[in-house]
Amino acid sequence: MSKIIAINAGSSSLKFQLLTMPEEEVLTIGLVERIGLENGVFQISVNGEKDETITDIPNHEVAVKLLLEKLTGLGIIQSLDEINAIGHRVVHGGELFNDSVLITDEVLKGIETVSELAPLHNPANIVGIKAFKEILPNVPAVAVFDTAFHQSMPEESFLYSLPYEYYKEFGIRKYGFHGTSHKYVSERAAELLDRPIEQLRILSCHLGNGASIAAIEGGKSIDTSMGFTPLAGVTMGTRSGNLDPALIPFIMEKTGQTAVEVLDTLNKRSGLLGLTGFSSDLRDIQEKADAGDERAETALNVFTSRIHKYIGSYAARMSGVDAIVFTAGIGENSITIRERVLRGLEFMGVYFDPSLNEVRGKEAFINFPHSPVKVIIIPTNEEVMIARDTVRLASV
Amino acid sequence: MSKIIAINAGSSSLKFQLLTMPEEEVLTIGLVERIGLENGVFQISVNGEKDETITDIPNHEVAVKLLLEKLTGLGIIQSLDEINAIGHRVVHGGELFNDSVLITDEVLKGIETVSELAPLHNPANIVGIKAFKEILPNVPAVAVFDTAFHQSMPEESFLYSLPYEYYKEFGIRKYGFHGTSHKYVSERAAELLDRPIEQLRILSCHLGNGASIAAIEGGKSIDTSMGFTPLAGVTMGTRSGNLDPALIPFIMEKTGQTAVEVLDTLNKRSGLLGLTGFSSDLRDIQEKADAGDERAETALNVFTSRIHKYIGSYAARMSGVDAIVFTAGIGENSITIRERVLRGLEFMGVYFDPSLNEVRGKEAFINFPHSPVKVIIIPTNEEVMIARDTVRLASV
Repeated sequence: MSKIIAINAGSSSLKFQLLTMPEEEVLTIGLVERIGLENGVFQISVNGEKDETITDIPNHEVAVKLLLEKLTGLGIIQSLDEINAIGHRVVHGGELFNDSVLITDEVLKGIETVSELAPLHNPANIVGIKAFKEILPNVPAVAVFDTAFHQSMPEESFLYSLPYEYYKEFGIRKYGFHGTSHKYVSERAAELLDRPIEQLRILSCHLGNGASIAAIEGGKSIDTSMGFTPLAGVTMGTRSGNLDPALIPFIMEKTGQTAVEVLDTLNKRSGLLGLTGFSSDLRDIQEKADAGDERAETALNVFTSRIHKYIGSYAARMSGVDAIVFTAGIGENSITIRERVLRGLEFMGVYFDPSLNEVRGKEAFINFPHSPVKVIIIPTNEEVMIARDTVRLASV
Repeated sequence: MSKIIAINAGSSSLKFQLLTMPEEEVLTIGLVERIGLENGVFQISVNGEKDETITDIPNHEVAVKLLLEKLTGLGIIQSLDEINAIGHRVVHGGELFNDSVLITDEVLKGIETVSELAPLHNPANIVGIKAFKEILPNVPAVAVFDTAFHQSMPEESFLYSLPYEYYKEFGIRKYGFHGTSHKYVSERAAELLDRPIEQLRILSCHLGNGASIAAIEGGKSIDTSMGFTPLAGVTMGTRSGNLDPALIPFIMEKTGQTAVEVLDTLNKRSGLLGLTGFSSDLRDIQEKADAGDERAETALNVFTSRIHKYIGSYAARMSGVDAIVFTAGIGENSITIRERVLRGLEFMGVYFDPSLNEVRGKEAFINFPHSPVKVIIIPTNEEVMIARDTVRLASV
C-alpha cells in the first residue's frame, strides 16, 4: 500500500487529498485559502469532522509545512515517511506533455515554458510544486496536466482556420481542458459498461461552473469544446463560450473597453451571469425560472441548447455514440438540465428514462434498457486520477 | 406576365438579372464593375452572347442609366415601361425586417439605421436603391434581405452568452446570412420531395467562398452557422469561422496588430487560404492535396470536418433531419467535399450513394433509395427568390 498526496495549487489556495493506493481510499481532504493574505484559512477533515485553523499563511511553503504538521499532529499519518509520492495538478502542458510525467528539473522548465499559455494557472501550480520539493526533496512528484488527455486530438480538430504560422510560431491551437476528469469518467464508463474502452465511443459532458464536452473514441480524446483557453465552447457560469470573433472589436468600439477588458468581460461577466443579470449559479436560475422569470428561462434554454448541439456535433464526429456521460456539479446533480439536454435525441439512439434521471450525485444509468446509447451519471474524481498517474509514474 | 429586374449592388459593382414572372425565365443577366474607377466594365448577355462595354462609369446612377439604355438599345425590351418592378438585394435587415418589403422612404431610413451592422454592404445597397429611384421613380421597388429568413430563429439560437444589455443596447446577436439562398433551396427541396415544407426538417449547406449551414424546420430557419457577421461558423475561403474569442487579444499581443487589423486577418487571410498558405480556392487545394501536399490535405480535413460537425449539431437541434441540401459553388460542384462531409452519418439515417454523387451543378438526389434522410443537390437561385418576393410585395 502507498500513500499519495494529490495537490491542486492556485495562486492563493492549495487543495489537497491524501489517498491510499491501490485502494483509492481518501484518508483526508482539505483546503488552504488566503495564502499571502491576512487571516489565512486551513481546513482539514479528521474522521469526517472539519478541523479549521485561522492563521497568517504568508506563502505556499508555509502552507505545505502546516499541512504536513497537521497530517502527523492530528494522527492521520504517524510519520512523513509514509508519504510515498505527490501528484500535482497542472493546468497547461501545451504540446510538450501528452501524459502525466515524473517531475524533474527539465520537466519543471517545460511547465514554465508553457506558462504563457496559462498565465493565471501554471505559475501557481509551479509554486506548489516547488514548495513541496523544498520540504520533501526526496519524495517523488508527478505532474498531471488538464490538457494532456486531449493531445490525442487529430489536426482537423485542434487547428484553427487561421494563418498556419500562428500555430507554428505562437502555439495557437485548441488544447482543451478538464482532461483529467474526461479521462476518469470515460474509463469508469467502460468499467460500468463492462466493455473494453478501445471499442467505445463516449461523449463526456463535464458540466460545472466551467463546462466542456469531449468526444472520446477508443479511450482517446478526438475533440473537445474548450479551445486555446477554457473560455471557448458552451455557455458557462460566467464565461461566454463561442462567439462570432468579429464581436470583440465591435464591443470594444461600443463600450470603450480595451481588448483585454473585453476578454475579462467574456470570462467573468458573461455566460449565465450575463444572460440572467443576477447569478452564475444554476440553482438560483432554476428557482427564478420556476417562478416565471423569463430571462432565467431563456438562460436555461441557451445553456442547454448549446450542450444539446455539441452532443449532435460529437456524435457526427464519432459516427455515432455508445455512451453519454454526465459529470461535475451540474452534470451530476441537475435533473432538469440533463433532461433538457437529452430531450429529442432519439434520432441518434438516445432513449433516457425520466424516472431513472431523478437522481443526484451518484453513479447511475438513466437510459431505458433498450436504448442503443447508454446514458450514465458518473461523479468525477480528478484526485483519484492524479493518484493513479502518480503511482504509475513514481513507481510506488 | 411581368418583368422584374433583380439587383445586387456592391460598393463598386452592380449585378443584375431581368426575369419574366411567373415563368421565372431569365431574359438577360449582366454585371457592371469598376464603378467610380477608370475604365468601368459593363457586361450584358444578349441571346447567350456577351456584350461588353468599357467606359468610365462615375457612379451608380450612370451605371443604371447605361443598363436601361442597353436593355432597350439591344432589343431585350422595347420600352422601359415593360419593367414592372425592381428587387434589390440588401445584406442586413437587422431586427427591423423579417421579410422582404416594398421600399418606402421609411423603409429606406430603416435600412440606413441598420447600416452600422453591415458597414461595408448596406451603404452600397442603398446607393443602388437610390439610383433606380432617381431614374425610374414610378416603378415599385422591393428590398430582399440576406438576414430576413433567419429572423424566425428563437432566442436560444440567436442570443450570445454575453451581458444581456449588449443585445438590447447594441443589437449584438446572431443574425445569420445567405437567407435568400437557404430559403430558395429549402422551398425547392420541399417541391422535389413532394411534401409540404411545414412537415420537413431541412439542413441546408450553402458552401461557396462564403459558407453557412442552416437548420430549417417547417420552412422556418431556427438556427444558422453565421453570426453577428458573416465571419462566424465554418471554415471559409479566407474567413476563419468560429474561434476561441480569447485568441483575439493573444494574436494582438503576439503580432502587434490592432483589434481591427486582427479582424481583417480573420476575414481575408484565414480560412482555407490561411491553412494552406497558397489559395482560398478549393479546386487548387484539391489538386495539391491529390498530389500529396499535406497542408492542403489538412485544410480539406478541417474544412469538411467543421461542416460535418454542424450537420450533427443541427440534426440534434431539429431532433433529426428529413433532407440535407447542398448548394452554392462548392456544394453544387465538389464531389469530394460532399463525400467527405457525408461519410459516417449512417447513425442519423444518412445513406448517400457515391455513384449518384458523381454529379456537378444540377439538381439531383444523391442518397440510396432506402435512406431515411434524403440528400439533394440544388443549385441556388437568389435572383429568382428576389423576383418572387418582388412580385408578391409590389403586386405586379
